[in-house]
Amino acid sequence: MIEETISRIDGLDEAAMEAAQHHQDILAIPLGSLGRLHEVCVQLAGITGSPRPEIRDLAVVVMAGDHGVVARGVSLFPQEVTREMVANFAKGGAAINVLARHVGARLTVVDMGVSGPLSELAEPQFPDLRLLHRRIADGTADMSQGPAMSRDEARRSLEAGISVFEEEKARGLHALGTGDMGIGNTTPSAAIAAAFLKQDPAETVNRGTGIDGNALKHKIEVVKRSLALNRPDPDDPLDVLAKVGGFEIGGIAGMILAACASRTPVVVDGFISTAAALLASRFHPEARNYLFAGHLSAVAGHKLMLDELALDPLVDLGMRLGEGTGAAFGLSILVASSRVACEMLTFDQAAVSSPESQDRRVQRDVPLSRRA
Amino acid sequence: MIEETISRIDGLDEAAMEAAQHHQDILAIPLGSLGRLHEVCVQLAGITGSPRPEIRDLAVVVMAGDHGVVARGVSLFPQEVTREMVANFAKGGAAINVLARHVGARLTVVDMGVSGPLSELAEPQFPDLRLLHRRIADGTADMSQGPAMSRDEARRSLEAGISVFEEEKARGLHALGTGDMGIGNTTPSAAIAAAFLKQDPAETVNRGTGIDGNALKHKIEVVKRSLALNRPDPDDPLDVLAKVGGFEIGGIAGMILAACASRTPVVVDGFISTAAALLASRFHPEARNYLFAGHLSAVAGHKLMLDELALDPLVDLGMRLGEGTGAAFGLSILVASSRVACEMLTFDQAAVSSPESQDRRVQRDVPLSRRA
Repeated sequence: MIEETISRIDGLDEAAMEAAQHHQDILAIPLGSLGRLHEVCVQLAGITGSPRPEIRDLAVVVMAGDHGVVARGVSLFPQEVTREMVANFAKGGAAINVLARHVGARLTVVDMGVSGPLSELAEPQFPDLRLLHRRIADGTADMSQGPAMSRDEARRSLEAGISVFEEEKARGLHALGTGDMGIGNTTPSAAIAAAFLKQDPAETVNRGTGIDGNALKHKIEVVKRSLALNRPDPDDPLDVLAKVGGFEIGGIAGMILAACASRTPVVVDGFISTAAALLASRFHPEARNYLFAGHLSAVAGHKLMLDELALDPLVDLGMRLGEGTGAAFGLSILVASSRVACEMLTFDQAAVSSPESQDRRVQRDVPLSRRA
Repeated sequence: MIEETISRIDGLDEAAMEAAQHHQDILAIPLGSLGRLHEVCVQLAGITGSPRPEIRDLAVVVMAGDHGVVARGVSLFPQEVTREMVANFAKGGAAINVLARHVGARLTVVDMGVSGPLSELAEPQFPDLRLLHRRIADGTADMSQGPAMSRDEARRSLEAGISVFEEEKARGLHALGTGDMGIGNTTPSAAIAAAFLKQDPAETVNRGTGIDGNALKHKIEVVKRSLALNRPDPDDPLDVLAKVGGFEIGGIAGMILAACASRTPVVVDGFISTAAALLASRFHPEARNYLFAGHLSAVAGHKLMLDELALDPLVDLGMRLGEGTGAAFGLSILVASSRVACEMLTFDQAAVSSPESQDRRVQRDVPLSRRA
């Protein structure tokens, strides 16, 4: 299933990108004056194959999982908060409920391996809210004592992500936003970043939900120990996921691969989702062309990963929450860009005089698909 | 009318800001993890007096006017484009039509002094779109040859802005976005910025809709000549508006003063709107506390004005169009912040465990109203 999905991933549609750029160039505005909205539109064209891509049906999928490594005291919050927050999502009272509603995205929450019973949770009462059960296990093992999960569990977490994406796609989906919930999950994400970027964990570990001082130093030591003990192979992404990953991280990476295979744009949230995006990009290098960075997280290490993926975040509001809250803002910008392409009039249509002297073709020294 | 409006402007509501900050601190998220959404909410509380401010009814008002100085060849576009673009707004096909719809704001376009007849324009066909006629004159005079307008015209443009705001407020308004349309209007805006900031025009003049090289040098010379000839008094904002301003710029400044007087938040668009905001802030220093910078424009000189106003832009999408397009994105972020305050559950309400060790009070060394 994973190999089949990856085999369907292809490059961007260069002809659609050229046509999209041309359409942007004849809109009744000074050339290029909508800045990144133009770039986003051209990339959306390359992804979808349409020069005027329609981005209307949106979903944010929040993958939730627990982490054995919280036993090492890496988080300010107790582990049961993962389960409690999933319940809060189901009630509609969390930040991502509010922000998904705000941008017009439906919300799906997936139990990928939350510790403790979730079965008693009431089914969500809202039509735009779903709760799915795809649990791989009752949280991962403590990666500072051995691999976080088996290779088979890593594979199953990716497959669960693929199948969740296929369900969402079948419901109608023009763009996906990723989200995460899992107390302690900045720790495996920092380990994944350190493994792939060959960076010292001191560069990728951050304050997470708010630790500092000695707790932060301890967290760096835990990541160093986990990497030294497990020796994840950066050339084998499944190995990295199994040894220092998490079920929700594998789930997000699986969704991203399936989205790329079906030519659906993905807005990546913050630190944890970007670690998953990095993982996905190591399964197929074209994956990054299907991605948008919703926002720049306020936690250290996020920018390192974004730079590696050559992603320029769409907003920077100093947020560091996860849940898909940064992705929600990014989705709204994709919709804005799509609406500009679909709803604005050109100089001719609007009967607006264009400047005679201006060459309205953009100078291009590299193909559009390489710039995206 | 102007003096009466200014006399009603007061400081932010400190008690509401304290209560808003407390409410943000007990939401079921890591402390402060929604970044600027928290800050925006606290400022909205200070403006509106409500700790959980409701920001739902939105309007973008685009003020349009022409400029005699275009005779000096400062713009890439011919003057008739102002009138043509007002017609495009009325048809619903411009960028601000699309982006106002996208963020759920109604749109009002005001003829403050467009050159040539606008009376033949069809009335807009959409319920969320209005076209108002408040023309002061058939464009301003050429400021490089004398004052752009009389002191009386400057006064009337401010009063028109105040009355347009009062109409909008009466229709139901929680937040206002400002916009402008006027071929050549980066030239007076650059002159206003140079006058108030006591900067060399080379620092405040920019490429506008796309000029460069010799045309840009010429535009700097035109602004220098206009300032040298008219000698606007930076301690007398009405004098600055009259000598080197524009009707739409006075209209926007009037709207801002009226919004401050009625404790309504204003999202300022880019270069032209920010020149108007600077003007308003010279009529009353508290005005800036009611303002949000929707975005950072890609044109030079915008950041200088934002710094003077101590405004930190909400988004940076590399846009440089005007029309209120940057304000639209900012309005959407105000709504998001308001919805977080109004719709999210606290730790207690959501039954989520909070970290025992964390002091959930934010350290404050200056009063909230001074930080806003």
